[in-house]
Amino acid sequence: MLLVMHKDATGEEIDAVTVAVTENGYTPRPVPGGERLSIGILHNKGPVDGAKFLAMKGVKEAIPVTRPYKLVSREFKQEDTVITVKGVEIGNGGSTIIAGPCAVESEKQAMTIAERVQEAGAHIFRGGAFKPRTSPYSFQGLGLEGLKILAKVREKTRMPVVTEVLDYENFDLVEEYADIVQIGTRNMQNFSLLRRAGLCKKPVVLKRGFAATIDEWLMAAEYILSEGNGEVILCERGVRTFVNHSRNTLDLSAVPVVKRESHLPIIIDPSHAAGRRDQVIPLSRAAVAVGAHGLMVEVHNAPEKALSDGPQSLYPEQFDLLCRQVMAIHGNLEENGDDRV
Amino acid sequence: MLLVMHKDATGEEIDAVTVAVTENGYTPRPVPGGERLSIGILHNKGPVDGAKFLAMKGVKEAIPVTRPYKLVSREFKQEDTVITVKGVEIGNGGSTIIAGPCAVESEKQAMTIAERVQEAGAHIFRGGAFKPRTSPYSFQGLGLEGLKILAKVREKTRMPVVTEVLDYENFDLVEEYADIVQIGTRNMQNFSLLRRAGLCKKPVVLKRGFAATIDEWLMAAEYILSEGNGEVILCERGVRTFVNHSRNTLDLSAVPVVKRESHLPIIIDPSHAAGRRDQVIPLSRAAVAVGAHGLMVEVHNAPEKALSDGPQSLYPEQFDLLCRQVMAIHGNLEENGDDRV
Amino acid sequence: MLLVMHKDATGEEIDAVTVAVTENGYTPRPVPGGERLSIGILHNKGPVDGAKFLAMKGVKEAIPVTRPYKLVSREFKQEDTVITVKGVEIGNGGSTIIAGPCAVESEKQAMTIAERVQEAGAHIFRGGAFKPRTSPYSFQGLGLEGLKILAKVREKTRMPVVTEVLDYENFDLVEEYADIVQIGTRNMQNFSLLRRAGLCKKPVVLKRGFAATIDEWLMAAEYILSEGNGEVILCERGVRTFVNHSRNTLDLSAVPVVKRESHLPIIIDPSHAAGRRDQVIPLSRAAVAVGAHGLMVEVHNAPEKALSDGPQSLYPEQFDLLCRQVMAIHGNLEENGDDRV
Amino acid sequence: MLLVMHKDATGEEIDAVTVAVTENGYTPRPVPGGERLSIGILHNKGPVDGAKFLAMKGVKEAIPVTRPYKLVSREFKQEDTVITVKGVEIGNGGSTIIAGPCAVESEKQAMTIAERVQEAGAHIFRGGAFKPRTSPYSFQGLGLEGLKILAKVREKTRMPVVTEVLDYENFDLVEEYADIVQIGTRNMQNFSLLRRAGLCKKPVVLKRGFAATIDEWLMAAEYILSEGNGEVILCERGVRTFVNHSRNTLDLSAVPVVKRESHLPIIIDPSHAAGRRDQVIPLSRAAVAVGAHGLMVEVHNAPEKALSDGPQSLYPEQFDLLCRQVMAIHGNLEENGDDRV
Repeated sequence: MLLVMHKDATGEEIDAVTVAVTENGYTPRPVPGGERLSIGILHNKGPVDGAKFLAMKGVKEAIPVTRPYKLVSREFKQEDTVITVKGVEIGNGGSTIIAGPCAVESEKQAMTIAERVQEAGAHIFRGGAFKPRTSPYSFQGLGLEGLKILAKVREKTRMPVVTEVLDYENFDLVEEYADIVQIGTRNMQNFSLLRRAGLCKKPVVLKRGFAATIDEWLMAAEYILSEGNGEVILCERGVRTFVNHSRNTLDLSAVPVVKRESHLPIIIDPSHAAGRRDQVIPLSRAAVAVGAHGLMVEVHNAPEKALSDGPQSLYPEQFDLLCRQVMAIHGNLEENGDDRV
Repeated sequence: MLLVMHKDATGEEIDAVTVAVTENGYTPRPVPGGERLSIGILHNKGPVDGAKFLAMKGVKEAIPVTRPYKLVSREFKQEDTVITVKGVEIGNGGSTIIAGPCAVESEKQAMTIAERVQEAGAHIFRGGAFKPRTSPYSFQGLGLEGLKILAKVREKTRMPVVTEVLDYENFDLVEEYADIVQIGTRNMQNFSLLRRAGLCKKPVVLKRGFAATIDEWLMAAEYILSEGNGEVILCERGVRTFVNHSRNTLDLSAVPVVKRESHLPIIIDPSHAAGRRDQVIPLSRAAVAVGAHGLMVEVHNAPEKALSDGPQSLYPEQFDLLCRQVMAIHGNLEENGDDRV
Repeated sequence: MLLVMHKDATGEEIDAVTVAVTENGYTPRPVPGGERLSIGILHNKGPVDGAKFLAMKGVKEAIPVTRPYKLVSREFKQEDTVITVKGVEIGNGGSTIIAGPCAVESEKQAMTIAERVQEAGAHIFRGGAFKPRTSPYSFQGLGLEGLKILAKVREKTRMPVVTEVLDYENFDLVEEYADIVQIGTRNMQNFSLLRRAGLCKKPVVLKRGFAATIDEWLMAAEYILSEGNGEVILCERGVRTFVNHSRNTLDLSAVPVVKRESHLPIIIDPSHAAGRRDQVIPLSRAAVAVGAHGLMVEVHNAPEKALSDGPQSLYPEQFDLLCRQVMAIHGNLEENGDDRV
Repeated sequence: MLLVMHKDATGEEIDAVTVAVTENGYTPRPVPGGERLSIGILHNKGPVDGAKFLAMKGVKEAIPVTRPYKLVSREFKQEDTVITVKGVEIGNGGSTIIAGPCAVESEKQAMTIAERVQEAGAHIFRGGAFKPRTSPYSFQGLGLEGLKILAKVREKTRMPVVTEVLDYENFDLVEEYADIVQIGTRNMQNFSLLRRAGLCKKPVVLKRGFAATIDEWLMAAEYILSEGNGEVILCERGVRTFVNHSRNTLDLSAVPVVKRESHLPIIIDPSHAAGRRDQVIPLSRAAVAVGAHGLMVEVHNAPEKALSDGPQSLYPEQFDLLCRQVMAIHGNLEENGDDRV
């Protein structure tokens, strides 16, 4: 943390800041500049809250120098975290494909789609049992019945299943049935849910909030790691911008940034970013090419009849094409070297 | 809902859409255009999910014509909702001022600030007992002890108190102690929390998500109303944009829009929008001038020592000035007529 | 400028950076931290381009400490710039009202509106002769004929007139006829236009680019001042965000920030921010309350027939109300003190 | 255009709207809905300005149904536009690579880089002679001298050259020396520059404004085509969002959208989007994978000494890697089929 003083800050004001830094247990270090003085804050163990110093007279700005996160950081743990679920690896250089419908609607629907996506190349099945919906009048998911259907899908196909948990109340239930528990974009800063996820024995997919910075996202992951669960898979799914030709704007530069800053794997959800089917395949290719560790894609056997997110769900034959294309790109990257320069 | 067909949609595709609309229980109405056909969807009781039609062949766009919300809408209830808490009215033409520290830190701190803001003109006391924090390592609030301090403040000053509830688990506790329960910006789409708030016997302040549209915000309120609690106070607190001179960008046009679309009262939180003390007084004046029903402002007797949000908390003497200025503007508006033209 | 080095930067890398700073004519000052070293750059006369240092090995971040602008800054010139045009002052504590139609359509239209807004309380008349239009097929303004009509309006009403200049080619013409020359939001970084405006003998209204930071906006003004024209009036007109209930989001916190950072006057254009008539009066009240030096408002005698921007133009009787309300608020602020705390 | 009437619009109001639509030369078509009436506007040749109708009593919303652009649209011209410059094709299924320094600094610098990027696989050389700079005190380019250097590069390497034109005044000069003329992001809505580009005999690269919608971008291209120049290359270079880990957010979904809506080729500039070197290679891979017709990349032989944009310029050996990787991905896409499903 660097405190930049006003050009005309008085000696008294500077002294007061120096004292305050010391009183807070840090070491102040004056940094004389051409026009003004700055004061460095040293020997802080965790992040420093600049707020209290910014509030003091004579202080113009408080500039954070080190990152606020710790356990999730690459500086803390150098090697990539690789997560293995029933034999499927995420984060180990491969491109793991998670696919399935937005919501589990019936055993027949789930099983039909599961077998179809597995055949095409998917490694993990996704399907919502509890659905977060903007409107209280929309379909809210099958609940426990949906979880039981997911269990049957796993039993039959041997694919691990991932499904979303909406709240603390149902966490035990979801944890019992799912192989991977998903926390959605609207819950990225639901801190009691994050703490509970930290006690979870299963890996957690943590979607980025649709208006979250990477710092905030990594701090949300830090909540989970700080409670003891180190198996977090980050999932970029688009951010809210002024752009109106897609539902959200997929922020692919998040991939190299997260891979530099953190050891956690990062996957991409092109379906929710686009919100429209015709952008999903191109964005999936881009996601694999940019270096993501995997994809999470919505597929439905009859999108026009889907109870939610139909317009962004791929037809099965589109998913075939997607798998062929991304596998080719991925294989290619392996041969030609990743972004390690 | 209006379905716009592609220019070259075939007769078969058009028929299929018409049939699908009928099968979903609506009435299709073809609208021939100069270049293409559109199909109106009539006799829908609630909002229509355009997704399923957008997914059909030949459909270019699905344009919603009516709003998705119902109970919160001005069309549903013409007259303003006025909420009365221990004699203090919100939404009845006055400008209700809620003030206090970000977090309750001690009985002495809370009582000192409470008496000071009451003297200056505040009607309701605010103070956080459970704090949502980006970092798991930051101060998380005093919890139950904080709630008990709030109760003492109420007893002594006779001011109603508002405090935030973070999760379902602590809702009973917060409901017991608070006069008004606050749901924060990060929880605006925490749907189980919203449902629980709908069963709450106390009024609820619902902060706008920092990247939420007004439709999403009103739908979040709709969750609360649909469970039976009609006493919702909307609170605009800034939205996330590219702008970097304030923490968020205060969206004041939300006030006339919400007042036109809904019967619920709307107040403004300039402190969190600005994130810096020196913008709070100007934005407070603007908030009252634009027609908000009230303000929620952070005040601290020693901001430089505050455990959270110090840099945006006003000094007591600044709050005096704020009250004088906004009361003058408010009195003025009453004489010169509001935005009723 | 502060260069933050990587935690594991080598002594050689640090030396190379130190040498480079010196070679560029600055003075390097090492700032040892707890975990890493930073290097301050001193004795720079103008802004330092951090790019070249950021590109060096071992450098993690380049953090600007001082502002990039000079002539426009409050540090450079303490007292407010007050601009006087034919007896009308802008920036001297008053609230100057500029009003008129989006485009000059005919002498009769312009004169009718001009007399009407003058009667209501406007001080300056606005009207476009050259119109920037998104579509090449839209009405592009009357050109020279429009300028001549503006001259007649000035002659008859004695109000100064402001009109937009679109390009270098027509600058002489616009400068000849206008009392104040306006540079629009899309031209805020049209640098040859800015330089030409710097040679202009008339004051310039510089609208903020709809996605410009305040730094970029002030740097655009710096272009004008650096060529010799010190009479720049800044005009905030809304920024582009994800918000969809108004055309743009009016960024009122720009007012206290600009007033702190610069000596130039700042006015607000609520019409283009809102894009809809029913938000213009509330936002105008807010603009005056927040402390702006004036307003620029679109008024039309028959908005439904306007050749451009009809939906956001006020009816004359609405403008009467606007003037009454903002004058009352302004008078009030004068009595109760501005945001000087 | 569809005019949605208020629920309680009177018969008189409806009649007035119907008459107004007719008077404007269109055909009104009433569309009765369940709760309210809508009125379709037919037989419009160009885009309809909804403003004038939105301003009428009883009208709630004016919803555009057809796109505002014409000459640039895929509906107008089905087949892809392929642009050929000195034997290099853009838009014909290949992946054209444009590379070079941000600014031409000297003949030696330009020639060194040109030979190096050509060897690596670049097809076209880029280099700025006139530079748009936020600050009037920054390096503004070599001007005519820079153009002459570009001509020498072309002569020696046989690569076509692209360079930016900043204003109308220098357009003749730039057109004379360049093979492709570039219009920058800040000039995307500089309408007199666009008109001049429409008279240009050379192809034009039109960068997307950093806060422009695709509709606005295509309308800017429409200005150029409407003056007679059909050779426009669209270039996506990132949009401004709240995201702070890259300078801008690269909007890759623009590629499938533009390819669907328009026949013009679209390329990607990852350097300006990222603003930092370490994101350029991953984003380049993503750009080619998403289906762009080419890349425009900044490369410098000594980025740490570059006079502008050093931190985002690749080292030559990084550019080698980039070319190898994107060519592999591109070859791959050709084998596995593009996004044509």
